[in-house]
Amino acid sequence: METRPDLESGSTNYDIVIVGAGPVGLMLSTCLSRWGYKIKHIDNRAEPTPTGRADGIQPRSLDLLRNMGLKSAIMSHKPARVYEVAFWDPPKGGKGIVRTGTWASCPSFIDARYPFTTLLHQGLIERVFIADLEKAGVRIQRPWTITGFKSDEKENPQYPVEVNLEHVDGTAKETIRAKYLFGGEGARSFIRNQLNIGITHKDPISHVWGVMDGVVNTDFPDIKMKCTIHSEFGSIMVIPRENNMVRLYIQIASSTDPDFDPRKSASVEEVQESAKKIMRPYSIEWERVEWYSVYPIGQGIADKYTLDHRVFLGGDACHTHSPKAGQGMNTAFLDALNLAWKIHHVERGFAKRELLTTYEPERKDVAETLLSFDNKYAKLFSQRPSQDTVQAAAKQDSDNTDGDNDFIRTFKESCEFTSGYGVAYKPNALNWSPDCHPAKSSLIHPAGTKLRTGRIFMNADVTRVVDANVVHLEQEIPLNGSFRLFVFAGKPTVTVQALKDLAENMAKKGSFYSSFARPDAETVSHHERHNPHSWFYSLCTIFAAPRSQVEISRDLPGLLARYREHVYADDRWDRRVSEASAAAHAKMGLDQEKGGVVVVRPDGYVGVVVALTEGSGTVDALNEYFGAFTTKKLGEAGAHL
Amino acid sequence: METRPDLESGSTNYDIVIVGAGPVGLMLSTCLSRWGYKIKHIDNRAEPTPTGRADGIQPRSLDLLRNMGLKSAIMSHKPARVYEVAFWDPPKGGKGIVRTGTWASCPSFIDARYPFTTLLHQGLIERVFIADLEKAGVRIQRPWTITGFKSDEKENPQYPVEVNLEHVDGTAKETIRAKYLFGGEGARSFIRNQLNIGITHKDPISHVWGVMDGVVNTDFPDIKMKCTIHSEFGSIMVIPRENNMVRLYIQIASSTDPDFDPRKSASVEEVQESAKKIMRPYSIEWERVEWYSVYPIGQGIADKYTLDHRVFLGGDACHTHSPKAGQGMNTAFLDALNLAWKIHHVERGFAKRELLTTYEPERKDVAETLLSFDNKYAKLFSQRPSQDTVQAAAKQDSDNTDGDNDFIRTFKESCEFTSGYGVAYKPNALNWSPDCHPAKSSLIHPAGTKLRTGRIFMNADVTRVVDANVVHLEQEIPLNGSFRLFVFAGKPTVTVQALKDLAENMAKKGSFYSSFARPDAETVSHHERHNPHSWFYSLCTIFAAPRSQVEISRDLPGLLARYREHVYADDRWDRRVSEASAAAHAKMGLDQEKGGVVVVRPDGYVGVVVALTEGSGTVDALNEYFGAFTTKKLGEAGAHL
Repeated sequence: METRPDLESGSTNYDIVIVGAGPVGLMLSTCLSRWGYKIKHIDNRAEPTPTGRADGIQPRSLDLLRNMGLKSAIMSHKPARVYEVAFWDPPKGGKGIVRTGTWASCPSFIDARYPFTTLLHQGLIERVFIADLEKAGVRIQRPWTITGFKSDEKENPQYPVEVNLEHVDGTAKETIRAKYLFGGEGARSFIRNQLNIGITHKDPISHVWGVMDGVVNTDFPDIKMKCTIHSEFGSIMVIPRENNMVRLYIQIASSTDPDFDPRKSASVEEVQESAKKIMRPYSIEWERVEWYSVYPIGQGIADKYTLDHRVFLGGDACHTHSPKAGQGMNTAFLDALNLAWKIHHVERGFAKRELLTTYEPERKDVAETLLSFDNKYAKLFSQRPSQDTVQAAAKQDSDNTDGDNDFIRTFKESCEFTSGYGVAYKPNALNWSPDCHPAKSSLIHPAGTKLRTGRIFMNADVTRVVDANVVHLEQEIPLNGSFRLFVFAGKPTVTVQALKDLAENMAKKGSFYSSFARPDAETVSHHERHNPHSWFYSLCTIFAAPRSQVEISRDLPGLLARYREHVYADDRWDRRVSEASAAAHAKMGLDQEKGGVVVVRPDGYVGVVVALTEGSGTVDALNEYFGAFTTKKLGEAGAHL
Repeated sequence: METRPDLESGSTNYDIVIVGAGPVGLMLSTCLSRWGYKIKHIDNRAEPTPTGRADGIQPRSLDLLRNMGLKSAIMSHKPARVYEVAFWDPPKGGKGIVRTGTWASCPSFIDARYPFTTLLHQGLIERVFIADLEKAGVRIQRPWTITGFKSDEKENPQYPVEVNLEHVDGTAKETIRAKYLFGGEGARSFIRNQLNIGITHKDPISHVWGVMDGVVNTDFPDIKMKCTIHSEFGSIMVIPRENNMVRLYIQIASSTDPDFDPRKSASVEEVQESAKKIMRPYSIEWERVEWYSVYPIGQGIADKYTLDHRVFLGGDACHTHSPKAGQGMNTAFLDALNLAWKIHHVERGFAKRELLTTYEPERKDVAETLLSFDNKYAKLFSQRPSQDTVQAAAKQDSDNTDGDNDFIRTFKESCEFTSGYGVAYKPNALNWSPDCHPAKSSLIHPAGTKLRTGRIFMNADVTRVVDANVVHLEQEIPLNGSFRLFVFAGKPTVTVQALKDLAENMAKKGSFYSSFARPDAETVSHHERHNPHSWFYSLCTIFAAPRSQVEISRDLPGLLARYREHVYADDRWDRRVSEASAAAHAKMGLDQEKGGVVVVRPDGYVGVVVALTEGSGTVDALNEYFGAFTTKKLGEAGAHL
């Protein structure tokens, strides 16, 4: 897309050095390579994860992968899909185990496109990213490791970070310079250690876990489901996998045990014997074990994600927790995405360098929430079934919450969070709030708005006007690093003047929009769909009218009409707002006559909602919002021309 | 799957020789190779279609491709999707063109999963099949042609067909023997000519068409839609394509013209000039022309599809028509599928050889319907706009049928047919009817049944019991060549005895089911999902109950429980039967308490519906149905044991 003056062939200067090619490193690398950055990406493993490791993709992550065009490559591996979780406990006063309830992994109160968890071997997921990176000319350098680094903006303002790399067998070395260094090396991060960043343990209890992937023959009826099984002989978590495989997690030891030894181990046979006992009266035999591992898990969170906003950490380098809630990869993806677009906007001159200071608080807060959830979840999982559990078992009614035990209740409460839709970034310059944000226009957050700043933009089906395709509005702009402006335009007859005024004020010198125009805007191809005017904004206009009544050249001013493939009719019925004539407007809580403008961050979270009015008010409010973090003074230049 | 005693390495004997690797040949080859047949497949082109040709995949064909596991490979090319067709005509008393209406290409009265036409270059579609064939070890032999053949069952009962093949440059020859020969060579079929099979022309009028694929720059608002444009300067059809391309069809000459010359041609520039005139007041300029061709189109249908039921024809070798309704490839697919499973069932000893006699009448009847539709459609398309059209244009109301002109009316009437869901096979041994079928049980077609024999099985969402996945019931059994038995089991408490009796009578010696058991049934892996007992049947059981109330080991007899991954809960809400508690049962018109058994042919068409009752009645009726075309006498052996 953009020219990259720093990309000189043969230069040892990079935009970023990324260490570790697990989910966090690959997501960061994929985003930045697509946006035109020069990347050095290394990993100390000779090849991608061959077996085992994290494998749960949550509903929100699947949305993200689709937005990146990677979902179909993931789904082509035919992953298992977890729609429900089953709970098994001992029967009241009896032996063995009975199903005491099931619960949707993404219940219908969450408006998810893909209300299930996708389970696939991490190596296959990594390879999807690696194939995409290769298209952009990025190859992971393997097996290489980092041996040292230093960062000094005074010494070299343009490439302040010096990084020393070495082949793992010591046969080759490299020293390179970069604008940024990213540590995605996992829990034992070298970079974190070098920075002397400590780990805080939320919960002093640690556990030793056995995890086994394999193919089994069993009469246990829920072997294709995600299950948590408590029995008098211990606890197991069952996770279905692709290719008829199943994963079993068994807790081998806990620091609460009187004779706890964090190095306690167990053989495959011992774990299989335990599983057989726990699953009685059902039988289970292994036809094949693909992978088996025993490892201690301690919950921890890094005290800092960066010291100087040049060297950053993300993923397991920042937070470790039990694998059972399936959050590791998803949190890693979102760490990387959050950082990627902020680096992009700073490096391209759109946002002030201070934007990078929002990475740590936004993502650390999510990690804290994850750990406190995991903590409760793991604790309950480790406990012997309580009297509560036994009572709940006796009721066998998954819909009746009275009978839920602590475990099921914790699980239910956490669904929004574990599905990925619960991520809520707190108010800052990006996430508008009445108290903390400099933008004070009374047009911001008009009454009725259901969108919440810092939360994911809602799903909505709409009809694209140019080709009558029924599309998912939230997916219409790909992950292109741009802010997404959704102009909900209400009734065309009502908003005709407001739209004209919106376009006119956006086009004015000094507006949030024109201040960051593409230098080549005059010569952009008419086929360009997403960024005809600016690399930092993509626009969609949605009318509360049937498609046949929308005429782009008549109903839209030129600036908005230029995005002709991003004009939609809000004319699809939605069961969640079954009475609404314009379901998308209604879901978002926007006026079905007068509309409203929604600003969505490049990573999909709502930044601000502004009423759509005649005059300059709407653009004035948007200038205030963007002016809080962009490099240019907005609005006034236009006003004084 | 099965052992293939005839597959001896180095032998020149084949199950089938397929000539032509267009859609019909590739579909036949793909089906038969998956089912274990030895295939010689040749094509006289050096490589797959490079540009141009047929490219419309109808909604029903997309279902079929999904059922074969090929849909995602097709969709990965990002084809255009046509949801609506727009009609443009001259304005009343004015110049130029105006949009007079739009109409859904697959309106909501058709219950389609994918209510759009998928447009993709034929070569890309061919390559998806070719890649699949290569997995099964079949490579198309290119560029080879057929030079002669003869068929004589007396001379060689096992391999009655002798085929002479030759490299197109004459440098190599082969003579091989086969059980069948298939001509999928297109309109100028050598095999059809050798058999002296005539072509009947439904309509004496022929046309010369120009077709141009390219990238344009235009302000015509519907350039991303399928459009038919009538103007005083002539007519155009616009078809959107992948990669910003558009296809234009322009009629260059018609045999109704006074000076008609079937060899009349036109240059690229001439066609572009015509298009510019027709599309006024809009402008259109070409940035690139990818493909341009002029060809005469005559409507014709082969008098016979086979003479001896050893040498068969299909696809364009049997029926030619105008390309505008986008039916060519879809009809070809269904020709091939219809023949494939019948050959399979005859060759594997399941069906009597007479089954093959149903191929021609079933498919020829569809071709006749297609031609008469195409005839009406093309005639209207060729005509100058009539007074009717002008009136309709003045109204501009696509929902008001009063204003429709003949063209729009024909179009609307034909939607079910063109979407592929209108195919209706007439009564025969496969498609039960009260008058023509030997099965006379009073349990057949219980009152209320909405399924129609010879028509496609309906869509329904259900929840799979073992893993709680929400699935498309009609897609649950892959295209495995088996009859599909959908046991709608109503309420578990009501049907418990009926299900027991069903299983018991199916297991009896001489039943339709046990008579065609797999010889290796005892040693089949417990992972086998679709064919644990027989290669000719796959079973699904659907309870009218919430998933949490279904317990497979408790509610199903062993025979049905063996298909544990094909047990479903009919507990998904469906807007089409919004009041029903068991939507799938309700849609099909089956009793929500007592259920019913639906037999679906291997190609997805309904064969028979039988009430589910206690006692032997249900199986007796199924024995009668299958006994009409299977090789074994059914039912009585069991009764007399």
